[in-house]
Amino acid sequence: MRLRLDLAYLGTRFEGWQAQDVTRAGAAPRTVQGELERALAEVYGAATRVHGAGRTDAGVHADGQVAHFDEPEGGPSIPPRGLARALNGKLAEDVRVLEALEAPPEFHARFSAAGKVYVYRLRRGEVLHPHLGLVEALAKEPLDLAAMREAASTLTGTRDFAPFSLTGSPRSTTVRTLSRLDVEEDGSLLLFTLEADGFLRGMARRLVGTLREVGRGRTRPADAVRTPGPTAEARGLTLRRVLYPPERPCGSR
Amino acid sequence: MRLRLDLAYLGTRFEGWQAQDVTRAGAAPRTVQGELERALAEVYGAATRVHGAGRTDAGVHADGQVAHFDEPEGGPSIPPRGLARALNGKLAEDVRVLEALEAPPEFHARFSAAGKVYVYRLRRGEVLHPHLGLVEALAKEPLDLAAMREAASTLTGTRDFAPFSLTGSPRSTTVRTLSRLDVEEDGSLLLFTLEADGFLRGMARRLVGTLREVGRGRTRPADAVRTPGPTAEARGLTLRRVLYPPERPCGSR
Repeated sequence: MRLRLDLAYLGTRFEGWQAQDVTRAGAAPRTVQGELERALAEVYGAATRVHGAGRTDAGVHADGQVAHFDEPEGGPSIPPRGLARALNGKLAEDVRVLEALEAPPEFHARFSAAGKVYVYRLRRGEVLHPHLGLVEALAKEPLDLAAMREAASTLTGTRDFAPFSLTGSPRSTTVRTLSRLDVEEDGSLLLFTLEADGFLRGMARRLVGTLREVGRGRTRPADAVRTPGPTAEARGLTLRRVLYPPERPCGSR
Repeated sequence: MRLRLDLAYLGTRFEGWQAQDVTRAGAAPRTVQGELERALAEVYGAATRVHGAGRTDAGVHADGQVAHFDEPEGGPSIPPRGLARALNGKLAEDVRVLEALEAPPEFHARFSAAGKVYVYRLRRGEVLHPHLGLVEALAKEPLDLAAMREAASTLTGTRDFAPFSLTGSPRSTTVRTLSRLDVEEDGSLLLFTLEADGFLRGMARRLVGTLREVGRGRTRPADAVRTPGPTAEARGLTLRRVLYPPERPCGSR
């Protein structure tokens, strides 16, 4: 049976999503996938490979990450609700299974995804509040919100986002559709919401970094689209939601 | 010159407010007062004693703690705004100086306080969210909110709160006036707000623990006042505000 896990984690103490090989020093970096696979192996008594929708970078958070795995053969069959409880009992509290669900056999957390939504929290002021600051980045400089919004509207649409990504993971195509790039103000917090059919590595953070350059007057709004800015700090970014096409009703084709 | 510091901290990795002696193992426990005094000593080049309004226990958070200290003689005189920045540069990010202010020479963070406000966050559900859960406690059991509110209304007022405190710090009197004990519901969060002219050690958490016993049907609302419950977990409690009498206008007596 295939199972879907909806996950939240605080990225602060993780080296990102993807399980990594043991380093020469002998310790495997702590990753979300690695921790989940360890917990699943304890629950099922067998090695279990987990597939995540998005490979969040080191320090990036999630509260709507999605993963799937197949129950190992010969292991116990655990009802989803009991599974979530069992996994949470074995995981550190900076990663939680929000929900476990039975998934159709063709469901794939990554390949079935039609899009993703990220949020970026940029706090304007002198300090980050210790209770919430782990999921925020700090902007001490004044920012021109109107200019940032003007630039944001020029960045949405379908284009080659390679200049707005980090090199590293080669892709067959770097064309993506950015359907939403909003900048909302909530007191001293600037909340960026980014929605696309897919994000290249570092793309969400470079888009935010680009808007910040506009906000501080270093890039004109009209130039933003050809002037990629620096990569914004990982700590402000959260994978909010993975979008899947609506399931076909039972019996339909 | 006397200075007032308004402070926020995440209590998770602190052994409470109060500086403690070095243990036999040789390491002093990490405390908020200890960290502040270390940072002040670095800034002023001289040992500096800090007085806090409330000695929060291990694991208890604050976002409105108040402290004062006197600028060491012979050290530099630093304007308050620069001082806050300098201290934050030397402190770990789980404690922040929200504001530094000049204070009148008779101001004392603890003895001038007329009251304190604490909040307690109790999340109803199966899991604590990793982004906010460090300042919340979890309640998996069903809770009868109406019964809790009924009990809360019987607990306010002026009385001897010794039965609702932890033993340990002897006080000349254990009579306190609890002027507010509210239970609000915000989605799956129960938010308790407690205001009193002073809190005995453990009092805020035992009041919450008492209401929780009522909520789960173990204590009848009318019996709460003579049936102190267990001490609720430290992680849900935050010192929200220290209340001071309004300053007298200049020239008045």
